[in-house]
Amino acid sequence: MYIAGDWGTTQLRLYLCDGASVVDRLSGPGIGAAAESPQKIFVALAARWAAEHKGLSAHLCGMVGSRNGWVETPYVRCPADIGALRAGLVKFESADFQVSIVPGLSCTNPLGAPDVMRGEETQIFGALANRPIASGERRLFALPGTHTKWVVVENGTIRHFLTSPTGELFALLRDHSTLARAGGEVTASSDEGFLRGVKRYAETPGASLSHLLFETRSRQLLDGMPKAEAMSFLSGLLIGADVAGAQSWFGEKKSHVTLIGDPKLNELYAGALAFHDIESASLNGEDCALNGLRALIEAKA
Amino acid sequence: MYIAGDWGTTQLRLYLCDGASVVDRLSGPGIGAAAESPQKIFVALAARWAAEHKGLSAHLCGMVGSRNGWVETPYVRCPADIGALRAGLVKFESADFQVSIVPGLSCTNPLGAPDVMRGEETQIFGALANRPIASGERRLFALPGTHTKWVVVENGTIRHFLTSPTGELFALLRDHSTLARAGGEVTASSDEGFLRGVKRYAETPGASLSHLLFETRSRQLLDGMPKAEAMSFLSGLLIGADVAGAQSWFGEKKSHVTLIGDPKLNELYAGALAFHDIESASLNGEDCALNGLRALIEAKA
Repeated sequence: MYIAGDWGTTQLRLYLCDGASVVDRLSGPGIGAAAESPQKIFVALAARWAAEHKGLSAHLCGMVGSRNGWVETPYVRCPADIGALRAGLVKFESADFQVSIVPGLSCTNPLGAPDVMRGEETQIFGALANRPIASGERRLFALPGTHTKWVVVENGTIRHFLTSPTGELFALLRDHSTLARAGGEVTASSDEGFLRGVKRYAETPGASLSHLLFETRSRQLLDGMPKAEAMSFLSGLLIGADVAGAQSWFGEKKSHVTLIGDPKLNELYAGALAFHDIESASLNGEDCALNGLRALIEAKA
Repeated sequence: MYIAGDWGTTQLRLYLCDGASVVDRLSGPGIGAAAESPQKIFVALAARWAAEHKGLSAHLCGMVGSRNGWVETPYVRCPADIGALRAGLVKFESADFQVSIVPGLSCTNPLGAPDVMRGEETQIFGALANRPIASGERRLFALPGTHTKWVVVENGTIRHFLTSPTGELFALLRDHSTLARAGGEVTASSDEGFLRGVKRYAETPGASLSHLLFETRSRQLLDGMPKAEAMSFLSGLLIGADVAGAQSWFGEKKSHVTLIGDPKLNELYAGALAFHDIESASLNGEDCALNGLRALIEAKA
């Protein structure tokens, strides 16, 4: 038996596993939100499991390994396979636990800039464990979120990736900008507004994203667009720009993308990809993280 | 004698004028920040002038004419010359003042979307009063700010314009995003970082702006870029995207832009324009607003 955990910026998810089965689960605060030290939070949360099962090991991925996490794990440089990730595991003892933290990855991204990830590498190896890549096959992954990652995988190796802070931009503009206009919460979303935004970006070549953003305000002021639709339009512009930009570097005219993330967010990306004639498959991010941790533990054995 | 005033979102600037001379000036809170009604603020501020000079008229431009301003002035539709602006003035009496508020302008922008401005139209007619446009000449203006405006003027008529929330995006990303990383205030700026950002956007065709933004974080994390330089790099990316995008619709390969705004911000735009081989001239925004109000008053006589 062992503990697997995905500890990101906003949430901690812990699983008590017996081989391939999850027998219990717990959740806690993210690394960014925690008032107490990660060590204290983890030990307090897992105390009940530790009382019932002696000598548990804990395998954690995500921002828990960042500078502001529990113990900093140095980035492993791409190209990286699961063996390279395993070699970079940082192991230590804390209270009664044998803890190992998965390192993040660094690379030079397809646009020539330095780039980093923490947590997504584990999700990708989880997806690959369920559906291995054939020799010579090149697969493109997208992991939508606060910082969306576009990742190129070849022969079981992560070649390189690119980060787009699409979700963060959307949240900033929705919650803090004059574009949203009024303060009220938007609970509804509009599929039509979203696709209109995707289309708008695609059909305005040469325009900078910033030249289209003001429409989310002006269409409310002058065209009577409801706020919920305007916010979906904004989401469509941003995800549309993300997909169109990624297309310009991932190259092939027709392609396929494996989406790993929150099912609702995957669905938005799938819609934007479909607009660009790109097929996609959707995998649940939580499941992939757990599978990835399992794959790392198995690779150790 | 009369009062001229530029009342924007963040600041009120009032001038007591005797013909072409400014004999006194006052400043006050912006329309967005005011705790009291615009009427109360104005009457309290201008009381001293009213005591010394009976029957003063007050001529105000900017957000004072918006829905959340003093009295809403309907937008005048482009194309619009100074006569159309004058016909749209909204006049009323308040305390002992004859108040007139300059309307904003609306248009369909060059990208086909509805667009609006309030205050910039007065600055442009101020610039034109000092240097009229020859018959048949087409001049491009840029008014950098929270919401940068790109404006096409022909024969003394504002044809259309486009808004880019470049300054708002910069402030949101600098003050509230994970890209800036730490909370500290950035006081210094880096010319080198700024031009590096302009160049980076220009030399990465096809990439979405969002695909370059993460560099402001990753270069701090991995390349040791100082935060001040990273924030200047971010400013260069955003202003570079604004200039490159505008170029794609203002058409001519070589062009000239008249910048109206804060001198320091004009200088940044001039740098980005120069990188794209576009010449520019810089006019002080405060002076242009005052000149524009004067031109409107003269046009009335």
